[in-house]
Amino acid sequence: MQASGRQTRIALAELEALLTSIFQSHGTSPEVAGILARNCAGAQRDGALSHGVFRIPGYLSTLKSGWVNGQAVPQVEDVAPGFVSVDAGNGFAQPALEAAHTLMLKKARANGIAMLAIRNSHHFAALWPDVEPFAREGMVALAFVNSMACVVPFGGSRPLFGTNPISFAAPRAGGDPLVFDLATSAMAHGDVQIAAREGKSLPRGCGVDADGKATTDPVAVLNGGALLPFGGHKGSALSMMVELLAAALTGGNFSFEFDWSPYPGAKTPWTGELVIVIDPSRGAGHDFAKRAETLVQEMEWSGQTRQPGDRRYQHRAEANELGVAIDEQELDHLRELAGIE
Amino acid sequence: MQASGRQTRIALAELEALLTSIFQSHGTSPEVAGILARNCAGAQRDGALSHGVFRIPGYLSTLKSGWVNGQAVPQVEDVAPGFVSVDAGNGFAQPALEAAHTLMLKKARANGIAMLAIRNSHHFAALWPDVEPFAREGMVALAFVNSMACVVPFGGSRPLFGTNPISFAAPRAGGDPLVFDLATSAMAHGDVQIAAREGKSLPRGCGVDADGKATTDPVAVLNGGALLPFGGHKGSALSMMVELLAAALTGGNFSFEFDWSPYPGAKTPWTGELVIVIDPSRGAGHDFAKRAETLVQEMEWSGQTRQPGDRRYQHRAEANELGVAIDEQELDHLRELAGIE
Repeated sequence: MQASGRQTRIALAELEALLTSIFQSHGTSPEVAGILARNCAGAQRDGALSHGVFRIPGYLSTLKSGWVNGQAVPQVEDVAPGFVSVDAGNGFAQPALEAAHTLMLKKARANGIAMLAIRNSHHFAALWPDVEPFAREGMVALAFVNSMACVVPFGGSRPLFGTNPISFAAPRAGGDPLVFDLATSAMAHGDVQIAAREGKSLPRGCGVDADGKATTDPVAVLNGGALLPFGGHKGSALSMMVELLAAALTGGNFSFEFDWSPYPGAKTPWTGELVIVIDPSRGAGHDFAKRAETLVQEMEWSGQTRQPGDRRYQHRAEANELGVAIDEQELDHLRELAGIE
Repeated sequence: MQASGRQTRIALAELEALLTSIFQSHGTSPEVAGILARNCAGAQRDGALSHGVFRIPGYLSTLKSGWVNGQAVPQVEDVAPGFVSVDAGNGFAQPALEAAHTLMLKKARANGIAMLAIRNSHHFAALWPDVEPFAREGMVALAFVNSMACVVPFGGSRPLFGTNPISFAAPRAGGDPLVFDLATSAMAHGDVQIAAREGKSLPRGCGVDADGKATTDPVAVLNGGALLPFGGHKGSALSMMVELLAAALTGGNFSFEFDWSPYPGAKTPWTGELVIVIDPSRGAGHDFAKRAETLVQEMEWSGQTRQPGDRRYQHRAEANELGVAIDEQELDHLRELAGIE
């Protein structure tokens, strides 16, 4: 999908409708189409461009390949008082998460903490949309998802881990929730793709080429090369933890276990996801959101003026007023895909 | 406590008895003495020297100052089916953890996941001993503890976070559990102290001096300077998460909230700790420990020959055969402290 470099604006509801129509005409059920469209339009609105409409060609080539089931109906199982398990049926992870959302909230409130294990699922989106809604309902949430083998473990020489992000959300009394979503790789895969598309170099220490040698060329990383973990052995240990939580614990595939080579065009990792939801009101007397606000005030005092999630909230506020920013040519292409002239 | 550089060996039981005697004669109850001695001797045995007998002078000066209550009896509260809360009574965190251990295991098995929130507690030890025992009982465990303001948030200029470690343990079919314990600071505080004692420089990018300028001098970091988070904004976000989980959620102090200046000699952070325990057998059909073993085999195939925890297990095996390695002069000093000539 080519970009013109000229920006226009579109109303969020219109973008969502456009994307819903595209997903549905490319093989998903109406339910799945609506959920993926909301997710993707939300990322575009929030300026998270590597997970916005940039992803649409990857979604569509994957659906076309037969690799993922766009019609899958997630099977929710109430395994234990604090444990929900979902078989996503080789569908996307987001419908599985949505199918379990109400039950997870109920369990977290009753037990203090609850866990959602999604398996047999494809996650091709940002991870923060999976936790932010819980924080808006007063919960603290953590999510882990593994992806596809493209990161060399610390001390190793061959890619094994996925970019394996960790996401966290917590309510805050004086503003929007504190939300972060960090790849345990030195860069997110989507950002490498963006750099390749724009002909930019990567920062040093992010990746290796097909021979295992350090490189700043995003094309070399994408073509047989690999990423490195962030922060050396520490990021590598966290990435290992994500494999264990998102795959071993859920019953999903490790990042190195699936083979999509018989499905040309397939781009979505077929793995698992773990979400932990905590009800902080069961804690010891203090109001959690007020305590979080105290921490934010202190972070600002220490000179950290931008809090995790702030950049997205700024984009969101602007989009709510002016419409969602989108490249003109990308929007034209989306309209073509939806059959709108 | 001076070191001679000459090493000797002592039986683990003898070292534990020596440390128990020292703790007890310096103001702790027999129960607390036994728990701290086991913890500290275990770190020494495992070659985790910054949390071994090196810590004894700090423990004793803290007890002497009246900052911590060595006689505290933890109050365990069964808050919800998956939530245990403990008021450590201004005592150490380890007795609080031990007091809740059996209840936590029971809750994790019944609910799939359980959470332990310790507050009003002092943690002056490594974090891996808090999670490894759960993995030996087949559980997956995560622990978070905040400490004292000595880390500058990313983008900030004044210290605010603690070294705020995250620890993780998971059972593995083919060997000892996979266990990591990583400070979210670029270095652990104990390692800075060791470097200062040994007159060594720190690696670049770990710390700043009292003027906020980058330095490799451990003394400058300890005297009014500060550490930096590991991995830039990502480590900083994780450190924030640790403050929220270990303090805001438990009802403990943030790393910047306590003032020990009226207690000269006090060294133990007065904060909180959060432990999450998961029963992986409630997962989806696979044997978790076998799946973890598959991951380990693949990490070895990729060239990562040392797994998280391996170095400690090697020291432990050696110590089990030959006795615990300890500096001669340090051992002499411990014997003096215990009143043994």
